[in-house]
Amino acid sequence: MRAREVRLKSRPVGLPSPENFEVAEVDVPAPGPGAVQVRNLWMSVDPYMRGRMYDRASYVPPFQIGEALQGGAVGQVVESNDASLKPGDLVQSMLGWREGFTAPAASLEKLPADNAPPQAYLGVLGMPGLTAYAGLLEIGQPKAGETVFVSGGAGAVGSVVAQIAKITGCRVVASVGSQEKADWLTSAGVDAVVNYKRGDLLAAVRAAAPKGIDVYFDNVGGEHLEVALELANPFARFVECGMISQYNNTEPAPGPRNLIYVVGKSIKMQGFIVTQFAGLRGQFHKDMTSWINEGRLRWEETVENGVENAPAAFVKLFSGANTGKMLVKLA
Amino acid sequence: MRAREVRLKSRPVGLPSPENFEVAEVDVPAPGPGAVQVRNLWMSVDPYMRGRMYDRASYVPPFQIGEALQGGAVGQVVESNDASLKPGDLVQSMLGWREGFTAPAASLEKLPADNAPPQAYLGVLGMPGLTAYAGLLEIGQPKAGETVFVSGGAGAVGSVVAQIAKITGCRVVASVGSQEKADWLTSAGVDAVVNYKRGDLLAAVRAAAPKGIDVYFDNVGGEHLEVALELANPFARFVECGMISQYNNTEPAPGPRNLIYVVGKSIKMQGFIVTQFAGLRGQFHKDMTSWINEGRLRWEETVENGVENAPAAFVKLFSGANTGKMLVKLA
Repeated sequence: MRAREVRLKSRPVGLPSPENFEVAEVDVPAPGPGAVQVRNLWMSVDPYMRGRMYDRASYVPPFQIGEALQGGAVGQVVESNDASLKPGDLVQSMLGWREGFTAPAASLEKLPADNAPPQAYLGVLGMPGLTAYAGLLEIGQPKAGETVFVSGGAGAVGSVVAQIAKITGCRVVASVGSQEKADWLTSAGVDAVVNYKRGDLLAAVRAAAPKGIDVYFDNVGGEHLEVALELANPFARFVECGMISQYNNTEPAPGPRNLIYVVGKSIKMQGFIVTQFAGLRGQFHKDMTSWINEGRLRWEETVENGVENAPAAFVKLFSGANTGKMLVKLA
Repeated sequence: MRAREVRLKSRPVGLPSPENFEVAEVDVPAPGPGAVQVRNLWMSVDPYMRGRMYDRASYVPPFQIGEALQGGAVGQVVESNDASLKPGDLVQSMLGWREGFTAPAASLEKLPADNAPPQAYLGVLGMPGLTAYAGLLEIGQPKAGETVFVSGGAGAVGSVVAQIAKITGCRVVASVGSQEKADWLTSAGVDAVVNYKRGDLLAAVRAAAPKGIDVYFDNVGGEHLEVALELANPFARFVECGMISQYNNTEPAPGPRNLIYVVGKSIKMQGFIVTQFAGLRGQFHKDMTSWINEGRLRWEETVENGVENAPAAFVKLFSGANTGKMLVKLA
């Protein structure tokens, strides 16, 4: 099999651009004993990948110049040399950013036999969904009647957070960057949606959360975090999932001017990585599929086509061009 | 009884000065049914009191202009009109900043009959001690072999944190502002003491904590917090007890430039108020008195004399003039 792949050509400074990437075509070897050859159908681009483009120690190693990038993908087995998988099976891997690959069968995960479209396993039923589920429920600990504020509310993670918070019985305030996103979240039952591009964010969130904020699910950082600290109630929980507003900074940016509220309001602010909640995956899949089947949890996708457009899809995350999960369709 | 008391004359702007306070002499009424008259022996000045001098909503109401301040005190009953207390009994109250008072017996707490000097109930065996104990053990969750960094390490809270962390089997790094304080903590068994007034704090703490920081007990905020974020290990716990470096700011100061590490390092940063751990008081008193009797936990006091010097004692907290607990001896 011949397959195109996307490699990191140079480390981005500030906002990444397509010039930081290059496409190459490679021969995908036939599978040896225990291995399978897979044609990718969908790949995921996610904001966290920006961190792996810096050359620094982190919880995941940095991407290497000249090598294919990595990320979530779902694909179809085309040739198998292992009893556990047969041609036609759908599998999930971290070998995105390429049209196909050969890998040990044991390193892949077969998708459950259910009615969900395969790309849902890159979104609501995959890593972003578990991030939302575990972060909100385990760290945020929302209680019915409380107010949950989620930034990046129309994103792959934020939109799931908002809807699970509604299911939990909370008042939900979400921030988004466009009217289209606001309309979607409103139609999905979110109580109040604030467009952060329109004027005074503090005033808008204050009006939307008259009883203050009990849980803040942070995907954005920066001004959003400062606003959440200002409006936090005593013993509020801040789920620190991401700070996309800071990922492309070329100089360290000052933190919120009111961080001292962590002391005065007894706030818990906690970062996490989704892998620490791997033990919840069974319950997560059960709850999510129930909610989806009951029509209580919906999702949107923004789809780009072709591996050569994966860099552009990735860059679009930082201007908020995606509603819901940003995907690249590969086949 | 005639008694002098210290009143808030004006709200401090920036660093408080003695001019923000005034001393008045009042008649202390004879105790009615159920009440006692108390002569205060010791009163406490604590950094958190600065927050109550601002006119703003908080977890404790602000001090009022023209009224006597409040704070921890131990005193002796001189006249009793309640069966629960008799003259000579030692009691603890929040009616400091005055030489004496009359109050309902039920609002006071009789000191335990033990060998501790009464003023220890304003320090190691009182609110600062419980703050250190509960904050470190419940929020910090230190494990033997981990590295604990405590700022304000020679203060009433910090010095107890440092010693309990040693008892827990941790490597302990403390920051202080003088050689005298460093010498004391070293003699008390702290592994490494850094003088934050001498040069590069980041370099000094990095050298003192070669395996990184697992628990940061924050009394200071500002640069100390930024250094702790920089050196934090994955899943570090930040016990946000106080940020004394920020209490006298006249303008909001920017937060740490590396707060994004909360996400990338899965840090938990949590503020608290000691009252939420009231349920631990029994275990706290048992553990602390054992450690004191075994010689494993020591304390220092810095004592000013006379209620008229309480404002000066309070102001001295912000220049770090105290080693250990800052007290005012009233009788």
